[in-house]
Order: sequence, then C-alpha cells, then structure tokens
Amino acid sequence: MPKILITNDDGIRSRGIKAAVEALQGLGELYVVAPMLQRSASGRAMTLHRPLRAVRVKMAGVEAAYALDGMPVDCIIFAMARFGDFDLAVSGINLGENMSTEITISGTASAAIEAATHDIPSIAVSLEVNREKHKFGVGEGMDFSTAEYFLRKVARAMLGKKLPRDVQMLNVNVPYGATKDTPIAFTRLAKRMYQPSIEERVDPKGHPYYWIVGTQCPTETLEPGTDMYAVKVERKVSITPINIDMTAGVDLDTIRNLLSL
Amino acid sequence: MPKILITNDDGIRSRGIKAAVEALQGLGELYVVAPMLQRSASGRAMTLHRPLRAVRVKMAGVEAAYALDGMPVDCIIFAMARFGDFDLAVSGINLGENMSTEITISGTASAAIEAATHDIPSIAVSLEVNREKHKFGVGEGMDFSTAEYFLRKVARAMLGKKLPRDVQMLNVNVPYGATKDTPIAFTRLAKRMYQPSIEERVDPKGHPYYWIVGTQCPTETLEPGTDMYAVKVERKVSITPINIDMTAGVDLDTIRNLLSL
Repeated sequence: MPKILITNDDGIRSRGIKAAVEALQGLGELYVVAPMLQRSASGRAMTLHRPLRAVRVKMAGVEAAYALDGMPVDCIIFAMARFGDFDLAVSGINLGENMSTEITISGTASAAIEAATHDIPSIAVSLEVNREKHKFGVGEGMDFSTAEYFLRKVARAMLGKKLPRDVQMLNVNVPYGATKDTPIAFTRLAKRMYQPSIEERVDPKGHPYYWIVGTQCPTETLEPGTDMYAVKVERKVSITPINIDMTAGVDLDTIRNLLSL
Repeated sequence: MPKILITNDDGIRSRGIKAAVEALQGLGELYVVAPMLQRSASGRAMTLHRPLRAVRVKMAGVEAAYALDGMPVDCIIFAMARFGDFDLAVSGINLGENMSTEITISGTASAAIEAATHDIPSIAVSLEVNREKHKFGVGEGMDFSTAEYFLRKVARAMLGKKLPRDVQMLNVNVPYGATKDTPIAFTRLAKRMYQPSIEERVDPKGHPYYWIVGTQCPTETLEPGTDMYAVKVERKVSITPINIDMTAGVDLDTIRNLLSL
C-alpha cells in the first residue's frame, strides 16, 4: 500500500485538506501534517529560529494527522521524521489558484517542492476561487468535487508511473465552474500572475504605512500555452510539470565567455 | 548612470550590506531597501496579511536607504514602487553560503528571484562562514574583501552585457579563505545542501517540542560540477546561472501520454 502525505498552506482546518483526504481514499495510507494557521504566501520559509509544537488531531479516513505551528515546508520535514518515507506528497487542495513563476511564493507549491527535493514525487493542487462569490476563510460553501476528481486522477497516474528524471512535481490548477468533462491542458508556467504595487496609507497618528496590493495580470496579456492562459482564458484544468532544479539550461562556457569571467 | 538596488535577508544592520555598498561604488546609483530584522530562511514569503512600515536610514555611499519591517521580497516590491525600475538588483552579501536547489529557502536568493520576475537582472551573493571562527550575528569580524572583489567583477560584467533569455539571475558563492586569485567555477545547483531532521525535546512542563536541525550533506557525497562541490571541495568561487521558470524541459505530449491524462 503506497504511503501518501497530505499537507497545505491554508491550515489544518481548511476545507481543502478534507477534500484532499476524500479524493485520495483507497489510493494509499494517508498521513496529514498541516500548519495550525493560515500560511498563504509563506514561500519555502522554514522555521529554524524557534522550536515547533505539534498537536495530534482526529481526522476521518487517515492513519494519523498532526497540526504543526510552523510553515508548510516544516510539515514535510516533520512528517518524514515521524512517519518515514512517502511514495507521494500532495499539497492542497488550495483555496485559490497558484500559477506562473510566482509558485515559489506559494506555501502550497513550496511544500511540494520541498517533498520533491527528498525524492518524494509531489502534486501541488489548487482550486481557483470565484472571489465575487467566496471570501477566503476556510473554504465554506466552495464546491471541491471537480478538484477532487482531478486530484484523484492525477495522483493515481503518478503512483502508477515513474516520471522522467527532470519532472519531480506536477502543479495542478482547477478553474472554478469546471466539471469532470473539462479538458486538461499540459502547460508551462506564465511569467507572473500578479502585478504587485504599494498602497500608502496614513495611520491615526499621522505616520505612513504600506499595503502590498497584487493586481491580477489582465487576460489579454496572457500567452497561449501557459498555465494562466489555460485556466483564465480557456477555463481548462492546467497541469505543469515542474523541475525543481533552476540551473539555467545554457552552456556554462558560453556564459563564462559572454561575461568574460 | 545605471540604477542598482541592494537588499539582503540578514537585515539592514548586517555588515554584508555595507560590503555590497562598498563593492558597487561607482558602478551606478545605489539604493538600499532591506528588512529591519534578520529574515534568513524566509524563502519567497510576502507580507500580504498586514501592512508594512518603512524607515528611512542614513547610509554612506547610497542615494537612499530604507529599512522595511517585512521580508526580502517585500523590499524588492517597495523599492520598485518608491524608486521605479532598476538596471540590476544585488541581494547580499549574505552571511553564509546559499547553494543547491535549496536556494528557494534562502531569503537572499528569493529576493533576487523576485527582482528577476520584474525583468531586473539580479545577483544573489553569499559568503561562506567559517562556523568555527564566527557566530552568525551581523558579521562582525568577518572579512568581506574577497567577496566584495568578486561581487564588483560580476556586477560590472552583468551591467555591460545582455544575458541570454534563459538566464535572469546569477547565484554567486564565495568560500571563506578565498583570495582575488581564487578561480571561478560556473556550476549547476546541487540537489541539497542540508539534510534536515527533527530533534525532540521536552519542555519544563513535560510537553514535547521540536527543533529542525540541518546537517550539511557530507563532502564525499557531492557531485563534481555542482555549486556545493566547487565551494566545499575545490574551494572555488561558484557562479550558477539561474532560470526562474521551473517548467520542466520535457515534451508536454510525452508527459501527457505517460500519465494517460
């Protein structure tokens, strides 16, 4: 029976983690280690400057579940120390899409990246949120059934096959409103998902403070073939194969000569 | 005159940021925006859930310097909002080496990655620390002169040339004890730098808590051609060209067929 680790960055109470547990029933022994708190946009941060607390929690359909007062990456490390190696790691189902080269900002994707560096094939899976209908919260009222269907399909495929050496992780995004008949597009990462800016405000004492505001890149700027185009324009399920090794695929002597170094 | 942004993850008070300012004198107009506090291992985390404070600080040899109570990535976004576009971003000089696919854990490298996604060519530069001689702190007593020499050399080369499309960032690591005559190796990222484990302790009330412990991968396991091998075995200065797009370089139809999706 394969061993499957489930984590996320929305926290142990997220509706999305229950959805992942439901989606993976019967595919293996399921273990959950997830942050106690919301840790969105935590990147691949690790908790090295203070110790961690872990609380065992009850969860239906899993061998064991822990809430950790750390980051998504910490959860991977804790889970491996506690339960040994895994055959698959699933991070999600995230409340909100994670696309473009900004996936390294995402705690969801970063947990999957961490798992991949320990030779655990991994899936980051995210469900687009219709922000006109849903506030973020813990995902109450959101329909995870299609995302569950595609997660199960992808997880089953990954457990059955050995991926090429250059692919250690799949980044899956499901648009809201998708059904089981929605096509899957295999995509590359777009360059950016958000264009960040700074909004300056003045506090009651007259001192300035600053909010980072992310404005989604407009649809007409998106390039066909990217994850952003597949989800936002074509309304398809996007799967991007990820190589965690960011070394540029260029001839090293060429770069050396170009830079005269 | 080119505009150069300097940041780091060790904080505005780090000796390494002064070293970067010294190294880059005369190459352009220098702007510093760095975290108020130590933010090592913060990854590409962004501060979206609370506003930021910024304090203008005095620093010799720069046009302007700000301390921001956020993450290294926030510093890039704040700097662009405040000062417009840059011709080069330099993150460092970090107290301690940043190598392997674990660079996405590093706040230093993540700031450079963020800059690169805004089309600012970037350099992450780190100086290996001799841990028998130096505690981390703010780098008092550390000799930055060789790291400064190589940073200046690399920055000058990058300002003068257009890098190939697939290279948006250079990750530079200088071993301690290096001199101006130390050779430069162009390298690929090693797989890991540290093997993490969990150390369980018991608090005065009898409850368990957990430290993440990183043990450096042993020298004999390092592969020639990697950044780790160059610095740890050959004692060379390592430069790794980085492509921020982690899409695996595989044929998408092949992956689709392999997974039958």
